[in-house]
Amino acid sequence: MNTKKIAGEKAAEFIENGMTVGLGTGSTVYYTIMKLAERVRKDGLKIRCVSTSSKTTKLGEQLGLEIFSLNDVDYIDVTIDGADEVDKNFNGIKGGGGALLYEKLVAFASKKVIWVIDNSKKVNKLGKFPLPVEVVPYAYTHLFNFFMESGFNPVLREIDEEIFKTDGGHYIIDLHMGVIDNPYEFSLKLKDIPGVVDIGMFLDMTDVLIVGNEDGAIVKLKNKE
Amino acid sequence: MNTKKIAGEKAAEFIENGMTVGLGTGSTVYYTIMKLAERVRKDGLKIRCVSTSSKTTKLGEQLGLEIFSLNDVDYIDVTIDGADEVDKNFNGIKGGGGALLYEKLVAFASKKVIWVIDNSKKVNKLGKFPLPVEVVPYAYTHLFNFFMESGFNPVLREIDEEIFKTDGGHYIIDLHMGVIDNPYEFSLKLKDIPGVVDIGMFLDMTDVLIVGNEDGAIVKLKNKE
Repeated sequence: MNTKKIAGEKAAEFIENGMTVGLGTGSTVYYTIMKLAERVRKDGLKIRCVSTSSKTTKLGEQLGLEIFSLNDVDYIDVTIDGADEVDKNFNGIKGGGGALLYEKLVAFASKKVIWVIDNSKKVNKLGKFPLPVEVVPYAYTHLFNFFMESGFNPVLREIDEEIFKTDGGHYIIDLHMGVIDNPYEFSLKLKDIPGVVDIGMFLDMTDVLIVGNEDGAIVKLKNKE
Repeated sequence: MNTKKIAGEKAAEFIENGMTVGLGTGSTVYYTIMKLAERVRKDGLKIRCVSTSSKTTKLGEQLGLEIFSLNDVDYIDVTIDGADEVDKNFNGIKGGGGALLYEKLVAFASKKVIWVIDNSKKVNKLGKFPLPVEVVPYAYTHLFNFFMESGFNPVLREIDEEIFKTDGGHYIIDLHMGVIDNPYEFSLKLKDIPGVVDIGMFLDMTDVLIVGNEDGAIVKLKNKE
């Protein structure tokens, strides 16, 4: 069985008529979006969607979903998104697909955030997955050198031998840190550095975790495991 | 006498042959740039310049200064910039002209930062001048509402009835806070908010303050007043 599909489709059950829904980006939430589009088409589900990336906007529009700009809605009822790794407190690292900034902004505007993952994304401590840092292009070499001198093992993200540019027009530097022992402290420290727009560490933003396994989806509510 | 001219021209004396010089933005540092260009032209001073805004780049190029991108230099020897207000610890608020992000990035890459101001810019505590916050356009309404609910009296910066866009492609929300009692704590708190790219509060970044008075310029070194 496709465990991403199991998790992704399960999350679609949380969406009700009339809701404003935040749509994440990635290979698991892809199945959520497909399922929601099916419910809109077959069951007449009425929802307004806000997208976290140009990729998801394109997919949603192709499927006939109504996509609104984040600035055009007052708030989002439920956002469903994936994650690259998640610890037992529902803190996680995101941004492997490069959409971390808009994903975080959409989560920030949401009453409830659901993450859909397969079992392989669970970790004891964050840091196995490289931490994406979205930076201002005007100073990226200086930030890269600063991270290098700080021992963070930075890698500038490229695609097809060009520097990868986010939907927000910034660059991404991936930090290969290993285990991050104090995520809260480290997050504050990184975000305080001039030129750091945001980082792919999502702390205390997620309410529900849906984990896809071979034999079905496990739904976990925060602090109620 | 023009006290801005007095301060701005005094700062130019700190620049020596062979230096890489950061050029700030504004009506006081304008006189520094004019003076430097004169020394290049008349005295054969050789410097490389890095600019903090499209406005300063234009001015510098018109005057025949060599302008490099921040990413093209390893570091900056001295940056000369203005400020909208400065307290006795050389902490300040900048960004009235909208160049706060690049100004901060250039300062961050500089071995020495000199601020040039006239006497009217000195304050006991920061906050008289509205605090500019540079934000990601994708979520500006949500950030505006968040600041409003937090009691920060936000005003979205506009110019000619259009939203003002920074050189980095972001928007600015000015916070009319009144006195800021704990600038360090408040700065960390603001920068941690998703969508806040940077803020116009410059803490512990400035080494020399040059204050223009009617009867001359006073040069102050940090912690040596």
